[in-house]
Amino acid sequence: MATIKQGKALNIRESRILIAGAASLVGSHTADLLLEQGVREVILLDNFSFGSMDAIAHLQDNPRVRIVRADLMRLPDLLTATEGVDGVVHLAAYMTLGFSQTPWNAVDVNIRGAQNMLEACRVNKVGKIVFASSNAVYGYGPGIKGALSESIPFYSEGAPPAAILYGASKIMGEQLCRQYHQNFGQDYVVLRYSTVYGERQHYRAANSLYIMETYDLVRKGQAPILPGDGKDTKHFVHVSDVARANVAALQSAATDVAVNVSGPEPITTGELVDLVLDYCKSSLRPEIRPDPPGKVRLTSGGAFHIPHDKAGEVLGWKPLVHMKEGVTRLLAWRELQES
Amino acid sequence: MATIKQGKALNIRESRILIAGAASLVGSHTADLLLEQGVREVILLDNFSFGSMDAIAHLQDNPRVRIVRADLMRLPDLLTATEGVDGVVHLAAYMTLGFSQTPWNAVDVNIRGAQNMLEACRVNKVGKIVFASSNAVYGYGPGIKGALSESIPFYSEGAPPAAILYGASKIMGEQLCRQYHQNFGQDYVVLRYSTVYGERQHYRAANSLYIMETYDLVRKGQAPILPGDGKDTKHFVHVSDVARANVAALQSAATDVAVNVSGPEPITTGELVDLVLDYCKSSLRPEIRPDPPGKVRLTSGGAFHIPHDKAGEVLGWKPLVHMKEGVTRLLAWRELQES
Repeated sequence: MATIKQGKALNIRESRILIAGAASLVGSHTADLLLEQGVREVILLDNFSFGSMDAIAHLQDNPRVRIVRADLMRLPDLLTATEGVDGVVHLAAYMTLGFSQTPWNAVDVNIRGAQNMLEACRVNKVGKIVFASSNAVYGYGPGIKGALSESIPFYSEGAPPAAILYGASKIMGEQLCRQYHQNFGQDYVVLRYSTVYGERQHYRAANSLYIMETYDLVRKGQAPILPGDGKDTKHFVHVSDVARANVAALQSAATDVAVNVSGPEPITTGELVDLVLDYCKSSLRPEIRPDPPGKVRLTSGGAFHIPHDKAGEVLGWKPLVHMKEGVTRLLAWRELQES
Repeated sequence: MATIKQGKALNIRESRILIAGAASLVGSHTADLLLEQGVREVILLDNFSFGSMDAIAHLQDNPRVRIVRADLMRLPDLLTATEGVDGVVHLAAYMTLGFSQTPWNAVDVNIRGAQNMLEACRVNKVGKIVFASSNAVYGYGPGIKGALSESIPFYSEGAPPAAILYGASKIMGEQLCRQYHQNFGQDYVVLRYSTVYGERQHYRAANSLYIMETYDLVRKGQAPILPGDGKDTKHFVHVSDVARANVAALQSAATDVAVNVSGPEPITTGELVDLVLDYCKSSLRPEIRPDPPGKVRLTSGGAFHIPHDKAGEVLGWKPLVHMKEGVTRLLAWRELQES
C-alpha cells in the first residue's frame, strides 16, 4: 500500500477530547472507552435534537466529563467548546431517514456543521479530528457488489434521492477535511463506518432499525418480515468496535486518510432474522413481504462486503465482535430496557 | 430506452421565465434565445457577485426583460421573484475554482441556493425548472475514461478536494430536484453541461479558461503552454447549444430526468491549442510544461467523451456548433473586446 502520511498522534491520558453528537449510540460508547483509557477530560457536545440524555446519563457525574449543549450550526458555540481541546470525534449527522424527512436540517448539519467544526478546530489548533463518515460514500443500488474498498466510486443509479443526498453529504464532509488539511495542515482521519448497531441502539438508522423491528415483532409473537428473499447482504459493525476505531484514530499518527470500519463479516437478512429468532428461542417463521411504498429501506443489488484491511494497516485496528455476539448483546440490553 | 416521464411543457410565447445567475455566459445567451422565440417576459436574476451587468447590458432596455438583483441565500427574495413565473432556468453556482477559493459561499449557493429555489418554485407553483448540472457529477481522475453516459458512478479517487466538492454539490442539487418531484410533483429537467465556452466567456471555469489563457499568450507572442503531452481529452459545448438545450427543456414535457449536454465531439488539449494558433495565424509552437503546484486544472486520466444521445431522445436536442466554429466565434468576440 501507499505510504501512510504522518501527523499528530494523541496521548489519550494527556488529552481533552470533544465528541460532537455525543449523546448517541457511538458517542456514548466512545466516551466510555476514552474514560476507561484514562482520558484527561471528555466534552460531550450535543444539541439534544436526536441525542438523548439517557445515552450519557451514566456519565454526568463523572468529574472528567463535561456536557455541553451546543449546536453545530452556531460557529461561536464551537469556537468556545473547542478551546483547549486536543482532539475531536465528529459524529453529529443526519442519516438517510433525516434527508428524507427533514432535508433542510440534514443539509445544514452534515455539510455546514462539518465545515463549522473544521473551522473551530483550525482556530483553536485542535491536533486531530476523527470524522465519522459512512460506507454511504460508495452509494447504493445495483452498483454495490463485491468488495467495497476505499477507492471505489459513488454509485447512485437506481437509489432514492434521500440516500444519495446522505452519501454525497458525507463525501463533502470528507473533502472538507481534506481541504482543511491541504490549506491549513489540519490533521484528520476519516472513518467510514458500516451500519453500526449495539447496546443503546436508537430507531433512526434504516438498517439497524431492522434488527429492532424484527425483535419487536417476534416478542409480540408476530412473524418477522423479510423484505425480498432474505438474501441481500448487510455489513454491520458493533458499536464497541467503532468506539475502539475512534480511539485508535485519535492515538494514531496517521493523517489525511479514509478507512472503512466494518464488522468481521457481512450477513444476509435471512441469517440476521435467524439470529433474532434464536435469541428469542422462537419457532416463528419469517414472512416474505415487500416493503410498503415509500418506506426507506436500503437494499443492495448483489452480495457485497466491506473490507477493513486498510484500517488494520493504517490504525492497527480490526473488529472483534461477530454478529452472533453483537446481536445477543444488543437484544439483552433491549430486554433490560423493557423490564 | 426507458419511458420518458411526462410533465408540464411550457409554451415559450405565453411564458414568464426566470433565469437565476442570468448575468453570465449561459444566462445571457439563454435570455437572447428566449426573447428571439417570443417569450412573454424574462426575469434576469443575479446577485452580481460574479455576474456582470456587461453580459446583459444589451437587454436592459428591452420591455420584455426585467432585471432583479437578488440572492439565492435569501428565500424571501426568491419567493417574490418567482411570483407568476412559469419556468425557471437555475444556473447560479460556484464551480471548482470557487470551491477552492471560497468554499463557504460555494456550499451555500450550490446546495442551499438550489434548495431555496426549489422551495420558491413549489410555493409559487412554477411549472418547470431546468437545473444546470455538470459532467462534474461523473467526477475526476483516472476513473474518467470512455463514454460518460448518464448512468455512470461518481469517480473521485485521485482528484483534488475542490473538484470533488463541486461534483458532489451538483449531485446534491440534482437529488434535491428529484426529492421535490417525488414529494411535491415539481417538474424539472437536469441538464449536465460539459465545459461551456463561447462569446462573453468569463475567466472563472478551469477548463474554458485554458482557451482564453492560450489565446492571451499567443497574442502577446508567447508560446502557449501544454500541461502534459497535449493528449488529454476535453469535451466542450458551445454556449449557443447550451441555450438551445435550456429552451428545449422548458418546452419539453419530459420531467424527472437528467441528460448530458455536450458538443458534437471531444477534443484533445493539443488540438485545441492548434485551433487557437490557426485562428491567430501564429507559427508559435506550444511548450510542454507541468502546471505550477496548487494550480487547479482538471486533467483526465484517459480519453473520454460525453454522449448526448439521451438529450436527443428526451428533448429532441443535439449540438450544432463544432469546435473550429466555436473557437473562431469566441476569439472573434474576444478580439472585438480588445479593440
